[in-house]
Amino acid sequence: MDHLTEKMLSSEKLFGGRVIDLYLEEVELPNGKTSTREVVKHPGAVAVIALTSDHKMVMVKQYRRPMDRILVEIPAGKLEKGEEPIVTAKRELEEETGYTTDSLSHIISFYTSPGFADELVHLYLAEDLKVMTTKAELDEDEFVEVMEVTVDEALTLIQNKEIYDAKTAYAVQYLQLKSGLGE
Amino acid sequence: MDHLTEKMLSSEKLFGGRVIDLYLEEVELPNGKTSTREVVKHPGAVAVIALTSDHKMVMVKQYRRPMDRILVEIPAGKLEKGEEPIVTAKRELEEETGYTTDSLSHIISFYTSPGFADELVHLYLAEDLKVMTTKAELDEDEFVEVMEVTVDEALTLIQNKEIYDAKTAYAVQYLQLKSGLGE
Repeated sequence: MDHLTEKMLSSEKLFGGRVIDLYLEEVELPNGKTSTREVVKHPGAVAVIALTSDHKMVMVKQYRRPMDRILVEIPAGKLEKGEEPIVTAKRELEEETGYTTDSLSHIISFYTSPGFADELVHLYLAEDLKVMTTKAELDEDEFVEVMEVTVDEALTLIQNKEIYDAKTAYAVQYLQLKSGLGE
Repeated sequence: MDHLTEKMLSSEKLFGGRVIDLYLEEVELPNGKTSTREVVKHPGAVAVIALTSDHKMVMVKQYRRPMDRILVEIPAGKLEKGEEPIVTAKRELEEETGYTTDSLSHIISFYTSPGFADELVHLYLAEDLKVMTTKAELDEDEFVEVMEVTVDEALTLIQNKEIYDAKTAYAVQYLQLKSGLGE
């Protein structure tokens, strides 16, 4: 064992839910002492920077229960069991926005809350968007409103705390950087 | 009620921990049907982009139990009850890196996992770093190793998935953007 790694001594599943599972784990610290860790297990998710032909970002407004408020976010959703992230990305884009595309490229993946959860978000860029003739169905407990905004408008939404989550803030910065570099 | 907002019908606390609490909530959806939401409550956190005089980012390597691996992240930590985020930022910088500063400015705050958790991270920029003569103590179950990397080295760490979390990826992009704009 190196000077940073913890060794798991026991793991108790406290809750198994539709979205997350919760474990309470006892660990041996690098100095030989013990401690407990609260660990949320999540199936992973995708998020999509969807750019229209006039360079707008497709956003979804949706109510988020943990904050008890409506947020503006890039389209996103959980991985189904065994699903390739790029397949999830296409499906969530279709379900949430009514757009589809064959042009999806992976940008980056990142853990969202490494201190207590293993959620990994895979971020994709979607271009050459086409409006679907038959709109895909949202999940039955999902209600969203679609918006299209310029990067400048997105920056204003960040100022106003309507865009208020890490993946969407990352996405806006990504596009600022991409345009700033003249790509 | 608007066409997006859910109404909470009941909330059951399933777990109260050192870091997070877990609630199972029943909600009324905008269409009048009911559903359940799994909600993790977190006290909130800070993260710090700490820049040395030679323009390096101060990073901490630490083991993260949810992923069972070591990650390279910007210094970060949870808010103590009632603590102002800027106070937490200074404290975590001191404890984790041995640097201190009087120059801390707020960059942005964002929710990390709005689908299931209310964790809000407040991101600060720390400049004019001074080495502390007496190193502040880490929490007794915290073990970290400090690194200083250029933005280019950080981009390589992202490629190698050693930097693999949202706040640190955002921080690297922030500095790319700042330098690209000639600030």
